[in-house]
Amino acid sequence: MLRKNRLFTPGPTPLLPAAQTAMASFAMHHRTADFRALFSRVLADMKDFIGTKNDVLVLACSGTGAMEASVSNLTSPGDKVLVLTAGKFGERWRDLAKAFGCTVEVISAPYGETFSLDEIRHKLTSDVRAVYVQSTESSTGARHDVKGIAKLVRAAGDDTLLVVDAITGLGTTHFDVDGWGIDIIIGGSQKALMIPPGLAYCAVSERAWKLMATTTSPRYYFDLRIERKAAAKGESAFTPATSLFAALAAALDYIRELGNGDLVAGREALVNNAELAAQMTRAGAQALGLKLFSPSCPAAALTAIQSPAGFDSGAIVKEFRESFGAVVANGQGEMKGKLFRIAHLGYYDYLDTIGVLAALEHVLANVTSKPAEYGLAVGAAQEVYARHLQRESASAVAQR
Amino acid sequence: MLRKNRLFTPGPTPLLPAAQTAMASFAMHHRTADFRALFSRVLADMKDFIGTKNDVLVLACSGTGAMEASVSNLTSPGDKVLVLTAGKFGERWRDLAKAFGCTVEVISAPYGETFSLDEIRHKLTSDVRAVYVQSTESSTGARHDVKGIAKLVRAAGDDTLLVVDAITGLGTTHFDVDGWGIDIIIGGSQKALMIPPGLAYCAVSERAWKLMATTTSPRYYFDLRIERKAAAKGESAFTPATSLFAALAAALDYIRELGNGDLVAGREALVNNAELAAQMTRAGAQALGLKLFSPSCPAAALTAIQSPAGFDSGAIVKEFRESFGAVVANGQGEMKGKLFRIAHLGYYDYLDTIGVLAALEHVLANVTSKPAEYGLAVGAAQEVYARHLQRESASAVAQR
Repeated sequence: MLRKNRLFTPGPTPLLPAAQTAMASFAMHHRTADFRALFSRVLADMKDFIGTKNDVLVLACSGTGAMEASVSNLTSPGDKVLVLTAGKFGERWRDLAKAFGCTVEVISAPYGETFSLDEIRHKLTSDVRAVYVQSTESSTGARHDVKGIAKLVRAAGDDTLLVVDAITGLGTTHFDVDGWGIDIIIGGSQKALMIPPGLAYCAVSERAWKLMATTTSPRYYFDLRIERKAAAKGESAFTPATSLFAALAAALDYIRELGNGDLVAGREALVNNAELAAQMTRAGAQALGLKLFSPSCPAAALTAIQSPAGFDSGAIVKEFRESFGAVVANGQGEMKGKLFRIAHLGYYDYLDTIGVLAALEHVLANVTSKPAEYGLAVGAAQEVYARHLQRESASAVAQR
Repeated sequence: MLRKNRLFTPGPTPLLPAAQTAMASFAMHHRTADFRALFSRVLADMKDFIGTKNDVLVLACSGTGAMEASVSNLTSPGDKVLVLTAGKFGERWRDLAKAFGCTVEVISAPYGETFSLDEIRHKLTSDVRAVYVQSTESSTGARHDVKGIAKLVRAAGDDTLLVVDAITGLGTTHFDVDGWGIDIIIGGSQKALMIPPGLAYCAVSERAWKLMATTTSPRYYFDLRIERKAAAKGESAFTPATSLFAALAAALDYIRELGNGDLVAGREALVNNAELAAQMTRAGAQALGLKLFSPSCPAAALTAIQSPAGFDSGAIVKEFRESFGAVVANGQGEMKGKLFRIAHLGYYDYLDTIGVLAALEHVLANVTSKPAEYGLAVGAAQEVYARHLQRESASAVAQR
């Protein structure tokens, strides 16, 4: 059969057509009143998308650039930071903090699991300058308890800041950024926002701005203070990735439409969409006898599924691509060959979610040479979908 | 869940992304050497797509425009023509021939069925100037036996011409245009070619050109002789729909890629794709206890499915659209409310085909208020797909 190019990777994700169109025809110069108006509108909308009243900055870089900014702006060499790591992206926090000369205290959880809040409380001594954590560890499909962690950090006092990498978390999970007291929260364009890679964004608290005035780690391109000053005038400090801004504006318009004119409601709809797709996918995979990789704390952004014993997940990834044009992700780092990952963040609908599960049934039969009982994964996912609709309609009746 | 705009209508069909891109950026003037080169290349490629050595013309109009051309160019007022009709588009042949003053002999088959070759043989008297037929009747999902009909027409002699509306037939069924002796075969851009509406095309035999020199029906915009003369110089007689030409060129390139560099093999791959999707859809619908509308002669281009007794198919169409963003077609004319139609022609892959069947399971449960046994339609379609793969791999082994 025809094979459409179908991304089921946790970034890049499928592109929103309206964003593609906007991007393709955009040719505005960035030092003009028109672009300043667009830039300011996008930044204001991004506050609603992130759910914060803090300053939001959009940078021309990948998510890792904003992660670096949160280290280089908030620390001085020798500062003690606490890194929570349970996967490849947690390890990136550790490497970044080390690169900038921090004294790095690490709390680890095994891949696929999450942290002990007790251990965090114990290690949160008053000399910890900042705590770095993922909201979703994309390499394992685990969701961390950002609310619980934030409570501990805030209890430790205003001299300890909380930085959350929500690159796959924003648009797939609920955050109360200001209420919980997240000092920097970071996102990326190629995730739930449904546009190509190239933009990172972050929301920065007053506590963080205050701290930045005192820190001495070297920074230039990622100096958030310069970006903040420029943003106040509707500009970026350096040349912005203009076509991606046009795409971002279109994506935010689409999310607003999802919420019937309300961007915050649209963001919630997007989060709920990922959550439902994740629930369908987990049910489908389990119906096939597959084991989830992060069963105790599964994220909505993606589902990581263990490869059946004795089979390299690379064969599954390859079969998906060759037979169906569907790109699912292999495990990363030490998890390569052991799991595969199916994304739900951003522009996925019912047909996508069902389609990839139906394909999984063939892929699994081919790779393991075991006969398939067709419709098993799909049927389980359909049950989840139908029950969700029933609950929704019952709650609509109750609200009348 | 999110609802992507998903066309499952037998035209317009989902657009090929490469064609959209080509179209969006195209701004060539049509009276230039560059456009003449493109125009000539497209016309040559269209011969391979249609499968003919006859002249191919591409007109700026919908399919009906080319249907009109095949009447106004091949007949004079008072000429006797034989129209084969078993649906709304057959009736269009009748109306067109009447509009141009032909004496119209009609052979009818009930909607959803096809013609008796005996009746055709009987009515094919030597004074019949032309026979008009659909290869696929899009309003009912029935496929007519063009090969069998052509045999009868050719046996009637060179003074009787055969005109085939293959608007949904080209790219979904096998034709030997020259071998069978089809005098005019007609297609449209918004069908298996995966581009928007706006272009019709036709291949014209030597017999047809000879006849045209003698016919007197009024024609101007659709005078095929003028188009032929212009095409010989790499031009169209009137302003061509240039951006659609760019899209068509991109679509033909894609079809060639499907055939690993061979356009004819690519066309066959496209036909086989529609056929497999149709087989999957028929099996899925029947697994749900639904009845096909044209069980004796089902087309590959689309599947027409009867609405369950007591339920208006409009409710099914509406539920598809509102719950899944999927546009399936209602019945047309007197079949409105009685059937719904799911398309397979053009740019559909496994995930599309499975996705719409999974959605059908929910739609049917909702509309009829009967509990669903989820996975039933999908499982039946997956069995068809798996058996197809087994046959393919067995035949590959046999060919070694």
